[in-house]
Amino acid sequence: MSSNPKFILREANLYLGEFIEKIEKAITDLQKGKFILIYDDDRREGETDLVIASEFVTPKSIKTMRKDGGGLIFLMTSKEIADKLKLPFLSDMYSDIKDKYPVLKELVPNDIPYDTKSSFSLYINHRKTYTGITDIDRSLTMRKFAELAKKTENLNDGQATKMFGKEFRSPGHVPICVASEKLLNARKGHTELVISILKMANLTPIGSGCEIMGDDGKALTKDKAKKYADDNGLVFLEGNKIIEAWKKWLK
Amino acid sequence: MSSNPKFILREANLYLGEFIEKIEKAITDLQKGKFILIYDDDRREGETDLVIASEFVTPKSIKTMRKDGGGLIFLMTSKEIADKLKLPFLSDMYSDIKDKYPVLKELVPNDIPYDTKSSFSLYINHRKTYTGITDIDRSLTMRKFAELAKKTENLNDGQATKMFGKEFRSPGHVPICVASEKLLNARKGHTELVISILKMANLTPIGSGCEIMGDDGKALTKDKAKKYADDNGLVFLEGNKIIEAWKKWLK
Repeated sequence: MSSNPKFILREANLYLGEFIEKIEKAITDLQKGKFILIYDDDRREGETDLVIASEFVTPKSIKTMRKDGGGLIFLMTSKEIADKLKLPFLSDMYSDIKDKYPVLKELVPNDIPYDTKSSFSLYINHRKTYTGITDIDRSLTMRKFAELAKKTENLNDGQATKMFGKEFRSPGHVPICVASEKLLNARKGHTELVISILKMANLTPIGSGCEIMGDDGKALTKDKAKKYADDNGLVFLEGNKIIEAWKKWLK
Repeated sequence: MSSNPKFILREANLYLGEFIEKIEKAITDLQKGKFILIYDDDRREGETDLVIASEFVTPKSIKTMRKDGGGLIFLMTSKEIADKLKLPFLSDMYSDIKDKYPVLKELVPNDIPYDTKSSFSLYINHRKTYTGITDIDRSLTMRKFAELAKKTENLNDGQATKMFGKEFRSPGHVPICVASEKLLNARKGHTELVISILKMANLTPIGSGCEIMGDDGKALTKDKAKKYADDNGLVFLEGNKIIEAWKKWLK
């Protein structure tokens, strides 16, 4: 450490340069249909997710997520698109129907250790899937969902929901998580991190992800996740870096 | 082939002997907490599931299911236990709340290619899980659910639901599939096959399973699943064998 102002400035510039380079590389990789790795925060889940823009998902992407990830393979959407499709949060739906199904009152998720609200919406399958669970089926569901999201931009709500139902059914095998409306200003989960970086990349804000598990029954540690990223030529990003870049991008 | 009646009888006895031996080995393995493999039917999903009695599930079991299976890691319950816990079918719940959430009307699963009804109920996490998705977390959810099911036998419905909510929350990461009330007389899916064989094994009728995926984007073929079973010293059973044994057991 030095208190020489010139040295500090150089260090800061080096840091800034590295930071910008990394975010730019992540954005380019996403645009090319490559995976990036996102670690949320030590104080949240403490998990690294394999993340990819859903418009590029292939059966091979699902295989990578289940083999190298091993967690839940899920879709993420921006709140605007969820609203267009009238996608509800499961917890809101459960709360509205709890008088008819009192078990839902008992199961209220009021004790999520790292958050205040579950971001889960419906589980879907594309209607052209068979069982819904194979790599071919799950990739079809994900890719078609991103395509649908792109198409809905110019549709009114009723048309969007109709088109959604024409192509998809629920219950299904692919869960959708919905990002907070204010994105990283409101919640700093993987869903918000992913949607934010997809927006910065000017891609359809629909992402696919899967948590990376370790061999010890827990999530893969941050260090091991970094090593996996290095070994596979993938960018590893921590949540706070995305938040920093997002704030600059908003200006 | 021979038309000699003695020969035919010997063949039939050999077949019967092999059949009984295989079912007995499957039952013993389940009782020891080992996996068995169940292939449903060429005319249904055409998928092989890795299956284990949930009361024996450990973090290592989840790892086996995600590494060697790769499909959805799910819980199966008998209808009696589901009724005791007041577990609804998602599709019934969706149908009841479709006026408030019209998207559910659009997404009605009226075109499942191999079945008439989805057997999905709620997705749960044990309240002592953290993210809910690690091997440790999912195994805890599964094992504790089997323990709960065992305890509910002597409880009335209200008590059972209360106890359920005290220990579990929903939405969560572990889906529950509910077997048909009449089991294999009504539906011949993996859920019914598993619950039937658990009952024959005199185990708590709560099973855990995961579909085995292949490297080609599809489910692993029957032949390759048999080879996996042989390589790992596991019993491979076809659905129709369980149905045959079940009919004999009922008598």
